[in-house]
Amino acid sequence: MAYERESIQRMSGYVPGKQPASPTTVKLNTNENPYAPSPAVMRALHGIEPDSLRRYPEPMSLAFRELAAQTHGVGANEIVAVNGGDELLRLAITTFVEPGRPIGMLEPSYSLYPVLAQIHNSPIIGVAAGQGFGVPEDFAARMNQAGVALTFLVNPHAPSGLLTSKAAIAKIARELNSVLLVDEAYVDFVDPERAHDLLPLLREHDNILFLRTMSKGYSLAGLRFGYGMGCASLIAPLLEKTRDSYNVDVVAQRLAQAAMADRGYAQDTWRRVREERTRVRAALLALGCLVPESQSNFLLAQVPGDKSAPQALAALEAGGILVRYFPAPRLDTALRITIGSPEQNDKLLSLLGVILR
Amino acid sequence: MAYERESIQRMSGYVPGKQPASPTTVKLNTNENPYAPSPAVMRALHGIEPDSLRRYPEPMSLAFRELAAQTHGVGANEIVAVNGGDELLRLAITTFVEPGRPIGMLEPSYSLYPVLAQIHNSPIIGVAAGQGFGVPEDFAARMNQAGVALTFLVNPHAPSGLLTSKAAIAKIARELNSVLLVDEAYVDFVDPERAHDLLPLLREHDNILFLRTMSKGYSLAGLRFGYGMGCASLIAPLLEKTRDSYNVDVVAQRLAQAAMADRGYAQDTWRRVREERTRVRAALLALGCLVPESQSNFLLAQVPGDKSAPQALAALEAGGILVRYFPAPRLDTALRITIGSPEQNDKLLSLLGVILR
Repeated sequence: MAYERESIQRMSGYVPGKQPASPTTVKLNTNENPYAPSPAVMRALHGIEPDSLRRYPEPMSLAFRELAAQTHGVGANEIVAVNGGDELLRLAITTFVEPGRPIGMLEPSYSLYPVLAQIHNSPIIGVAAGQGFGVPEDFAARMNQAGVALTFLVNPHAPSGLLTSKAAIAKIARELNSVLLVDEAYVDFVDPERAHDLLPLLREHDNILFLRTMSKGYSLAGLRFGYGMGCASLIAPLLEKTRDSYNVDVVAQRLAQAAMADRGYAQDTWRRVREERTRVRAALLALGCLVPESQSNFLLAQVPGDKSAPQALAALEAGGILVRYFPAPRLDTALRITIGSPEQNDKLLSLLGVILR
Repeated sequence: MAYERESIQRMSGYVPGKQPASPTTVKLNTNENPYAPSPAVMRALHGIEPDSLRRYPEPMSLAFRELAAQTHGVGANEIVAVNGGDELLRLAITTFVEPGRPIGMLEPSYSLYPVLAQIHNSPIIGVAAGQGFGVPEDFAARMNQAGVALTFLVNPHAPSGLLTSKAAIAKIARELNSVLLVDEAYVDFVDPERAHDLLPLLREHDNILFLRTMSKGYSLAGLRFGYGMGCASLIAPLLEKTRDSYNVDVVAQRLAQAAMADRGYAQDTWRRVREERTRVRAALLALGCLVPESQSNFLLAQVPGDKSAPQALAALEAGGILVRYFPAPRLDTALRITIGSPEQNDKLLSLLGVILR
């Protein structure tokens, strides 16, 4: 007999990018940072004593939250630590969406959003992104009209890398009569010359919730550590009621704290990723791919010529290079390519040159 | 403006036992194992290389599940790994309970169950435990009558330590027309002479889901690692659909695996806890406390004489000893005392002797 709920029976689970790869595989499929985490993280790891493993962790991740608060110029009560950014997405649904009420998103976008909505019995209100994956002018109005309780907006956009401006995000938050979750998973890779900083908006809008993760910017995807930021009244129910009481383990707390304390190291990796992003994009354009300008650590490259995207994907994989392909409208002619180290990028470009010749 | 759902506004969050304690505090309030984790766990910790932190973890915890399958004589597809046992409780609700449908439990019991039910808009159907905290004969019938979709049963019982037999659990599973989650968080501490092993029941009942945790038995509460076991059709939706895609981080996976591989070490700590349990119970009885026989790593001691339980709690805390007190019917005259090391137990008994004199 099947005991799971009907909607669970009907749905398909999220399919993560391939993980098992030989050490020689060039892994450009899941947007990891190509550089190792800070040496300070490894020192923190080696400093974990048996007694910290034996005892329950500090349940509120207070030390990390205080450091992050200082770093970002917000209060510790405006931050909640989570077991990877995905937990914040789930928690936002649990907390702000009555089961069955609709959830909004831009389409295409992070493919986990609809999966989480289905688990919650919530229909997805998808508004198609504009030509260059931008947010349409009437986005908030359409969400209000559909009665959504929560809207997901990833910025920089995935999988295109397009950055939506502070003014545009502020307008959406102002117009929406429900919660706006701005998924800033990739924000660390935005060019500093853009002076892009949305955090002051949490003072002006009580409905804006920012998602941050240590997975990409701080090279800690293996750890599962992210955090949410918003005004204290928005954060309080997540912090005090809906998250699992010990959601983040002691190792993740300590290592995330060490990584945040050595932010200069991470910033240097961001700079190197940006430099490579510029170089790889130019090379892909030279190969005939259409590639939107990206403020993230990946590029969305349209596959030109006779080869289909799945064919190019397979040929790359046969050559030991993993990239990501999404069998979805507007994406199924493209490959999403994570920016790797210079050597990895060289391998990718050289093989892709052969494939697309 | 408050954006959280009405039921979230109304509810109170779970209150975990106090964690911040000076190193000299005798911490007998959250049922941790008093002995350090296996040295093999520390070796695994020190063997984590930067690249494993940088990359996403293996999403299915396959290596751990295969080892646990071997250990328990079940299939890897009959196991799901979770971010602490609490995640399995939440996942079982998400997966098997249509929002709003009732959830069953014995009362009193683990105080997190009603919190999770409230988050899900589900009323709790509480059936009062018998005199000695046993499960009443008509337990399953009453759950069926109330239309519950999921029933939580912690065995050994918390906070009394009473063990319900395999025959009794089998009868409940057989009679229930929905899912029975048997929370075996404390099962490692059951006296081996009882030959208590419920796992064969997962072959006979497609509705029985077992919860295990590495927190207590394996001295890894800081890590957040647990697992669920049940027949493959019951486990599949949890494994493939409802859990967060990377719910368990790489460090937790590796350390849990190391701990499970060195099970003999853990078994030795269980034996030492059992020996102390016998000694501490006898001493508490001698102090005039009523203490049910416990098959867990804690004792529920009724506070005798003029002192109230909160008074005894406060007096212990003033003396640097933390134990747990539940302000709930049938529990508010007692203290739940975790079995510590012989030295910790001596300190507890000596101070309690003074307090109750």
